[in-house]
Amino acid sequence: MNEQLLLSNIRNVLIRLEETIIFALIERAQFRHNEIIYRKGAFPNVGSRSLVGYLLHETEAIHAKMRRYTSPDEHPFFSDLPEPILPALRYDEDPLHPNRINLNDRIRMVYEQQIVPFVCTAGDDAQYGSSSVCDVACLQALSRRIHYGKFVAESKFRAEPERFRSLIVRRDTEAVMAAITDARVEQCVLERVRLKAQTYGRDISTGPEFRYRLHPERVVELYASWIIPLTKEVEVAYLMDRVPGD
Amino acid sequence: MNEQLLLSNIRNVLIRLEETIIFALIERAQFRHNEIIYRKGAFPNVGSRSLVGYLLHETEAIHAKMRRYTSPDEHPFFSDLPEPILPALRYDEDPLHPNRINLNDRIRMVYEQQIVPFVCTAGDDAQYGSSSVCDVACLQALSRRIHYGKFVAESKFRAEPERFRSLIVRRDTEAVMAAITDARVEQCVLERVRLKAQTYGRDISTGPEFRYRLHPERVVELYASWIIPLTKEVEVAYLMDRVPGD
Repeated sequence: MNEQLLLSNIRNVLIRLEETIIFALIERAQFRHNEIIYRKGAFPNVGSRSLVGYLLHETEAIHAKMRRYTSPDEHPFFSDLPEPILPALRYDEDPLHPNRINLNDRIRMVYEQQIVPFVCTAGDDAQYGSSSVCDVACLQALSRRIHYGKFVAESKFRAEPERFRSLIVRRDTEAVMAAITDARVEQCVLERVRLKAQTYGRDISTGPEFRYRLHPERVVELYASWIIPLTKEVEVAYLMDRVPGD
Repeated sequence: MNEQLLLSNIRNVLIRLEETIIFALIERAQFRHNEIIYRKGAFPNVGSRSLVGYLLHETEAIHAKMRRYTSPDEHPFFSDLPEPILPALRYDEDPLHPNRINLNDRIRMVYEQQIVPFVCTAGDDAQYGSSSVCDVACLQALSRRIHYGKFVAESKFRAEPERFRSLIVRRDTEAVMAAITDARVEQCVLERVRLKAQTYGRDISTGPEFRYRLHPERVVELYASWIIPLTKEVEVAYLMDRVPGD
């Protein structure tokens, strides 16, 4: 089996991405909400985009040149990106079934409208550039994590092809969702995320009576309400799209 | 006194930057050294620059448009950057004496030639784009931390203007270095960095017998050998440049 589909390897990637996501959120949480940076046209010099949209697009354009989006585990937020300038990397045979699933529009909406106000203090501290830079890091990490559901789904399919094939043929989305759901594993993820957020979110400078820079329960809530459900949505969409028997 | 010069505020910024630096180094340490990304001309498509140099330049060009380098605590690595497209931010009166001190060439050389091989496993894993993205984050965090020495120096000068004035007039660089050095404070920084690196560098996934993703003593060594000395160099250069009595 392709190495990227070994459940142990998938698990390692998802675990590492937890750190990346938690670190990025802690960085963002040091600034206020700064709602204006999400408003389209609020900064006429960047055109009709929002400031974050502009920075995200410019950043993706550079990263596209660095061939970031030729990797099967990377998904751009924009489609009008330049070609890579690095020679193509010889990936192992793409372990995924061909698909065009990309939930980034949803991810961005959820991030800007729900996650940022949930994680940041309300108000405006004028740190628009710095906040936008953090937002790009958060969005890229969340997108990577959520779309990794494709690898999870392919791996689950290959473990029980007959079972999934029959559910997919029947177009039984709910049964597919039930089949990929493991409440015990989800509980484990939430526990681990809580432990990490407690460890990394601690403001050590204040001494033994530390306070959190970002409260661990917020991170857990974010995983429970958005990150895990969106990942499962990717898994189901990927499986429903997968030509059975292929 | 200007708020940015209150020692308590300076201390808070430096403490927060410790997290940013440690997080960024941990991210970089997941990839191999990938020495080729630091070699000029190794990737003909990016021209005569190295891959990291190219990405750093492109990133600074975007951030310059977001007015990053109008802030007195930000210093670009390149000088050929576009003008800001955001309206100028009203900073409080610049607390620093006018100066053009910029150690970024040195910082980049130390980072690429000494820090990366010290932090990363030797070898090449072909993750050139991802490694370069991490390098840019590390370089930006290190530059910010080290140049914050200007604020430290200005604050120390204002606390004992007569003492510093006489040393500066005598061009006694060594005495200025001695005057800004506080071995006890440096020891505190190293202890705090050790504690943070132990906390954040822990690979929790492996259970109670955890291993470090980046060994804490490496981070401490990095602070002791490069970050603290370079910050002090900025402090001394800033003070020697400062017109006494001004």
